[in-house]
Amino acid sequence: MLHISIVGTGNVGFHLAQAIAACPDLKLTEIVGRNTDLGGFPTKISDDFERLPETDLVLIAVADHAITSVIEQIPSTFSGTVAHTAASVSMNALKRFKNHGVFYPLQTFSKNKALSWKNLPVFLEANSLQARTQLETLALSLQTQIQYADSEKRLKMHVAAVFGCNFVNALFACAEEILDNENVPFDTLKPLIYETVEKAFSLSPQKAQTGPALRNDQPTLQKHVHALTNQELRTVYEKLTELIQNQHGIV
Amino acid sequence: MLHISIVGTGNVGFHLAQAIAACPDLKLTEIVGRNTDLGGFPTKISDDFERLPETDLVLIAVADHAITSVIEQIPSTFSGTVAHTAASVSMNALKRFKNHGVFYPLQTFSKNKALSWKNLPVFLEANSLQARTQLETLALSLQTQIQYADSEKRLKMHVAAVFGCNFVNALFACAEEILDNENVPFDTLKPLIYETVEKAFSLSPQKAQTGPALRNDQPTLQKHVHALTNQELRTVYEKLTELIQNQHGIV
Repeated sequence: MLHISIVGTGNVGFHLAQAIAACPDLKLTEIVGRNTDLGGFPTKISDDFERLPETDLVLIAVADHAITSVIEQIPSTFSGTVAHTAASVSMNALKRFKNHGVFYPLQTFSKNKALSWKNLPVFLEANSLQARTQLETLALSLQTQIQYADSEKRLKMHVAAVFGCNFVNALFACAEEILDNENVPFDTLKPLIYETVEKAFSLSPQKAQTGPALRNDQPTLQKHVHALTNQELRTVYEKLTELIQNQHGIV
Repeated sequence: MLHISIVGTGNVGFHLAQAIAACPDLKLTEIVGRNTDLGGFPTKISDDFERLPETDLVLIAVADHAITSVIEQIPSTFSGTVAHTAASVSMNALKRFKNHGVFYPLQTFSKNKALSWKNLPVFLEANSLQARTQLETLALSLQTQIQYADSEKRLKMHVAAVFGCNFVNALFACAEEILDNENVPFDTLKPLIYETVEKAFSLSPQKAQTGPALRNDQPTLQKHVHALTNQELRTVYEKLTELIQNQHGIV
């Protein structure tokens, strides 16, 4: 049985800890983090690395800028695998450990929202057979969908995820602001947004595009810009209209 | 039983015709449109308005710029209700008819993608009790969720829909382009995108935001911009990063 320690009690660390603790094939040895209260979580949470020798795999799930200082606290003689979960940090940052790798789940994590790891794409990178085998064991035990990516490809995956998730959510917030001003709940967009997502996956985003920008419907585009009183939403509207027209070769 | 004629065989006209023809409480009298082949559709499709006198309600589902010319072809003595389905055209465009209104479904329609009308928000506007009752009958028969909006509010709903659907889909196309370059299928983003949508509705978009822009993670933001070789994607990345930071008061 794979013994795993997690460093970090943020969104990713929290969800990893929950999933590993719930998995009969894995043993969560220790959680190291500043936030020592994870709502009655049964595993010991400490702020040092005392139980590390009992562990096969250390998962560093802290903010990118904190990874270097975490690495310095782990003895370089540690013979297990040390891996991080960061999209945009090179595997090379872990090179002082004999066995190292990356376990990058392509997902958005919030503590107050439960999620499933099943079929979740996880991008692995490893410098040794031991590291690779252990990361694969973790990925398989959580029933994720295993993919492999070097650090450069993983960065591209992260950029794609920012477009498909972070930016999309920011547009939802824009829509919510517009609806709020009319006292219409954001939920009113639920059928439209789910249909948008279903269509993108069933037809492809290129073929699923609709709307006034695609039709180059200038009177409607002008009415919309005029209706937007928030100057920032207006410039986002204009920029993304231009994007759609360029994506579809509309002059 | 409400007898309905539809003018227009585009995406909205096509889906309305399918839903009305399939509904036991409604009778589809005639479809008027240039495209007289809707794949074996049982209702007569013509290019004139010969059966209009038999109809209670005419639904004009053509492109916004074509509405005026359609209106001119319907005799002003027509005593039924004439309604259009356009988000951004004022109800007033139909004022030559005694009974007129608007039936605006907040949805994205593509001919090659089936969809459900059940619980779909439909925004109604009517100038008379007759028009209102008939539009409500249609909306109830299709099991939609009825809302009411004057022309100004409906325009705002459309702008919100452009942000939540058209622009979101354009970002999916950006993500697809980035993944294509790495030979990764767009489907890989499915769990992430569905989770993004679920989180937006369960937490609100404001609370669901994650990512490097929200964390003001400058090294990652710079790596991402650098990784984007397409100049347009780069400017969209920068603009939407700025949007997120303004939405969350990050300097």
